[in-house]
Order: sequence, then C-alpha cells, then structure tokens
Amino acid sequence: MSQQESPSQRTTIERIPQRGSYESEIIYQILDEGLVCHVGFVADGQPFVIPTAYGRIDDTLYIHGSPASRMLRFLQQGIDVCVTVTLLDGLVLARSAFHHSMNYRSVVVFGTATLVQDSKQKLAALKAFTEHVIPGRWQQVRSPNRSELAGTLVLSLPLVEASAKVRTGGPNDDVSDYELPVWAGEIPLQLNMAKPIADSGLHPQIDVPAYISNYTRPKATR
Amino acid sequence: MSQQESPSQRTTIERIPQRGSYESEIIYQILDEGLVCHVGFVADGQPFVIPTAYGRIDDTLYIHGSPASRMLRFLQQGIDVCVTVTLLDGLVLARSAFHHSMNYRSVVVFGTATLVQDSKQKLAALKAFTEHVIPGRWQQVRSPNRSELAGTLVLSLPLVEASAKVRTGGPNDDVSDYELPVWAGEIPLQLNMAKPIADSGLHPQIDVPAYISNYTRPKATR
Repeated sequence: MSQQESPSQRTTIERIPQRGSYESEIIYQILDEGLVCHVGFVADGQPFVIPTAYGRIDDTLYIHGSPASRMLRFLQQGIDVCVTVTLLDGLVLARSAFHHSMNYRSVVVFGTATLVQDSKQKLAALKAFTEHVIPGRWQQVRSPNRSELAGTLVLSLPLVEASAKVRTGGPNDDVSDYELPVWAGEIPLQLNMAKPIADSGLHPQIDVPAYISNYTRPKATR
Repeated sequence: MSQQESPSQRTTIERIPQRGSYESEIIYQILDEGLVCHVGFVADGQPFVIPTAYGRIDDTLYIHGSPASRMLRFLQQGIDVCVTVTLLDGLVLARSAFHHSMNYRSVVVFGTATLVQDSKQKLAALKAFTEHVIPGRWQQVRSPNRSELAGTLVLSLPLVEASAKVRTGGPNDDVSDYELPVWAGEIPLQLNMAKPIADSGLHPQIDVPAYISNYTRPKATR
C-alpha cells in the first residue's frame, strides 16, 4: 500500500455482471477467505467503520448482530453501506523508503443493506456465518432456538457493486537504487492457527475434532 | 463477534484524557501491533471504507498516499473520518451456533484528518510509517528525496476521540448446553511471517538482516 499502489486508488466501481466471471471469482475467493469485514455507514453525517463477522451465500453477503447493536439498528433502516474485506499477504521491502508497500487482496462492496425478514432465509444466513468461519461446525452444534433466532438481526447486501484490488510480488525499485547494499524482497504473512484451547468446562473425553485440528482458511491462488 | 459481543455495541465515545492511562495504553498497543487500518469517510453522502497503512507518533495517527488518491484528495479537505484497526486473536467455538464468537482487539478513532504541510513533520511521519511496519528499516534504506516527499500526501489525525474494544477467553454457553457432546473452546489465530522472498534483482551476497529474519509484530499482553 505504497503511494503507487494504495487501495484508495480504486477504479470506478463497475457492476459485476458487466465484467468477466474471473473478477467475480476473485471477489468471492477474497470474501470466503476473510473472517472479518469492516462495515462503513453514515449516521448524522458522521462516518462509522465497525468490524464484524459475515457470511456469503452465492451473490449475497450477510452480516448479523443483536437488535441492541447501534450499527444494526441504523443499518436495518436500509441505508447505504460500504463493506470492505482486506487480506494482508505480505510486506514489500524496497531499497528506498518510498517504494515500501504491502501485498494484499481487498474487496469493497457498496450497496443498501436490508433486513432479512424471512425466517428460512435467516436460518440459512446463520448457517452461512458458522460455516464461513468453521466449515463442518454447523451440524455439530445446537441450532438456534426460536428466541435466539428472534434475538438476531440479519442484514443482506447484494454483491452487485463490488470491486477487488490485489497486489502481489516484490518491490518496484528505482533502477538507480538496485546497487544499494540493502536487502529487498517480500516478507509473506500468514494467518495461522495455534493449538486449540479447550473450554474449562469441557468433558475430558471430548477430543478435538478433525475439522478443528486441521483448520485452515480456504486459500485462493494468488 | 457474536450477537452478544459485537464490536458495534461500543460504548459512547469518550475522550482519552478523561479516562485512565490504562485505556490509552491499550489503544496505543493495538494501533502499534496492527498493520492496516480501515479509513471511513463520506463523499457525496456515500460511505467509503478504504484499507491503508499507517503510523503513530505519540498521540497522532498518520496515514499517507499519493496526491492522485481519491481518498487522500477527499480527506485533505479536512473532513470527518472514522479509522478502525482490528486485530483478530481467535475463533470462539461454543456448543450452540448462537454463542459462537471471535476474540479480537479493535480501536475506533473519530476525528478530522488534516494535511501535514510542515516538511519536517512530514518526514517524521514517513519514518513512522516505515518503522511501524519494520522496526530498524528506516536507517537501512534510501531516504525520500525531494520529489518523493512532494509526491506523498500525509494526513494527521489526533488520537483524542478513540475507544478500544477487546474480547478474550472461551465461549459463554448456556448452562443447559454444557452436557452436549461438542468440543468447545478457542482456536487462537496468529499473524505469522513465512520465509522472506528475496527480490529477483538482489545481489546474492546480501543476506537477510536480523531485523527481518526475527520479524514479529509487537505483542501486547492480552
């Protein structure tokens, strides 16, 4: 994210259907690998940026929260949002301070979030939240009961106005800087799982299931 | 980030000086560990959320970019922003779908970003960007020349209206769910460095310096 490659220099937003399926595929891969999105909205003229979990079903993004949530209360009125997911892939070290950068993949989605009223669609979204984070988990755990369903607001956002930005590779140094005796290249970054920590109340005979011990995020080809 | 613990349920923003130094310390630690912030701003009534790099000097946050950057052009007019930094520390697996959550630390900063005009302050901010990402790097690399300095916009944001949110620990299951034969606990997540990749043009006699091979993010006590 150097001066040259800042994600802020995004191209004009286009509608996904007008572009090739390749672009949609990249957008979906980034959304599926990410765990947290940043939801931007305007309240009383003031911008807010709130991190939250999300899920995707086909070309719809879902976010959820408590009816008491300030963000969700605002958003359910059907206001414009900007939802951004950023995956940091590496630090790019150049021979000059100026050309330092970051490798990343990001998706920016614009649209109007609307409240999911249909209970079947709501349950499908809740399943998508869980399966997005830990595939295989939904069928293992107790499903939401009626009061939990009622106590969850789910908002949907169509993945229509969305764009992806990707930076890969090493530094782009000035030609004259290549002779400098400075290490240059990339430090790749990875989000890794450490050893799972069992809940203190867990029955000792319950082992860590394979879908947890083998846990990784889906990795797209970069 | 479950229904109960969504970061959107933040408390009313207070001014840092009115709170204990403990809270400021947490805010600074989160900002210093993070690598990417999400900058929210409003343009023509539309919210934008853009990921970008940043640096901190004392109680000032700095972001930068090219004068051609759409975001920077908007922000240099002195408009309100919301800057959010989120560190994802773990996945919280409960016995019910409803109580699944995430452990995280986040900081939300509100304020008006202003253009840094003073060249000395600008250079200090550029140093802060580099040292924020890779401590020890600034003195190794070529410093910005006059045209690079002119070609970089730096914005400053005072860390006055800021708040931190932190979730730690295991799931908070319903009492009646503890008898379910389901593994529950936390999957800790870490941002790790993989083996550095040397730039293809790198002179083979230049080894990876210690500040890169030993690279880690500063870790606060959680």
